[in-house]
Amino acid sequence: MTQKADTKFKRAAKRGSHDFELACQVLDAGKICHVGFSLDEQPYVLPMSYGRLDDQLLLHGSVASRMMKNLAGGLRCCVTVTHLDGLVYARSTFNSSMNYRSVMVFGTARLITDPEEKRAGIQALVDHLMPGRRADLRKSTPKELNATSLLALPIETFSVKRREGPPGDSESDLDAPVWAGVVPLQLTAGEPVDAADILPGIKRPDYL
Amino acid sequence: MTQKADTKFKRAAKRGSHDFELACQVLDAGKICHVGFSLDEQPYVLPMSYGRLDDQLLLHGSVASRMMKNLAGGLRCCVTVTHLDGLVYARSTFNSSMNYRSVMVFGTARLITDPEEKRAGIQALVDHLMPGRRADLRKSTPKELNATSLLALPIETFSVKRREGPPGDSESDLDAPVWAGVVPLQLTAGEPVDAADILPGIKRPDYL
Repeated sequence: MTQKADTKFKRAAKRGSHDFELACQVLDAGKICHVGFSLDEQPYVLPMSYGRLDDQLLLHGSVASRMMKNLAGGLRCCVTVTHLDGLVYARSTFNSSMNYRSVMVFGTARLITDPEEKRAGIQALVDHLMPGRRADLRKSTPKELNATSLLALPIETFSVKRREGPPGDSESDLDAPVWAGVVPLQLTAGEPVDAADILPGIKRPDYL
Repeated sequence: MTQKADTKFKRAAKRGSHDFELACQVLDAGKICHVGFSLDEQPYVLPMSYGRLDDQLLLHGSVASRMMKNLAGGLRCCVTVTHLDGLVYARSTFNSSMNYRSVMVFGTARLITDPEEKRAGIQALVDHLMPGRRADLRKSTPKELNATSLLALPIETFSVKRREGPPGDSESDLDAPVWAGVVPLQLTAGEPVDAADILPGIKRPDYL
């Protein structure tokens, strides 16, 4: 792993890691990332879906998107994926915290132009976002593929941060007569909502 | 609302808004934001907790944090809050999508130095993250307050984006024999986990 960006852990070093497998676990468990870049001295942070193919993080968007054009043109970016795992109720405001897992990937994205690589990348995106879905969908048309930009960002310079476990109260707060602990949080799927116009006889697939 | 940053909607204009009330609704419904800024030409996107007090978005961190120092020093930032509301299963890869609400706030944060304003801001943060909790906690000590930086970012230049509703399939895909619809997603609280060392007789508070 190279260190182009400054990913050293100045503070809270115990929460940081540069472990590739761990980074991939955090990436694979998420559906949206936040893509950061600067244009004309103004930072932007945009939510996007993403996928992963080996050591490449994949982003897709319209070929007409200004952001996609800029990123494809070599604009440096930072892509961050975060899971909020819980609220940590300590016995003081100061020690109250959150449990989370987060990975930041730094670098410059590459526009995927090879048709086979692009098709494989889009498949990886669909498999990441909607596992099992791909077999049910028709192939993308050349027109659709041409309307889509696909970018690959190497998972090479990155930083993983996480907090887990119970509150870390000060010794002097332990006799406070107040509840302490963690409320776990999780992104949960609800009951699927059928589109109004699905064909008669079509059932909900198991992969939902 | 001023327009310092470029928040015009070049594409997908139907998904965008500059409505302050709507922005506050999206902000108030979240627990973490992603803070973007650039240092030495390198963008960073960091997950943080946050709060809101009227038209100010509040960020807190250690006074030792490099990011907090830079933001307090006038470094421009973009703070984005996103809720992933659902996966949109269209009848094609191309029209598959996500339902979401997102707000980006652009600007320069101000370090809150007035003790009363700082105390009120930290209270707003706790009330945002853990409603009901504050009454159970002791007051922050001067040492704790001094160790904490609190920043206020005006909710002035911002952009709200959202997608909701069913898939938007192409007319030509509507006869495909495949399920279509939305799988709603929601951040859900699980069963609280008691800290091992809470005092005997302390019960879980109702606000959990």
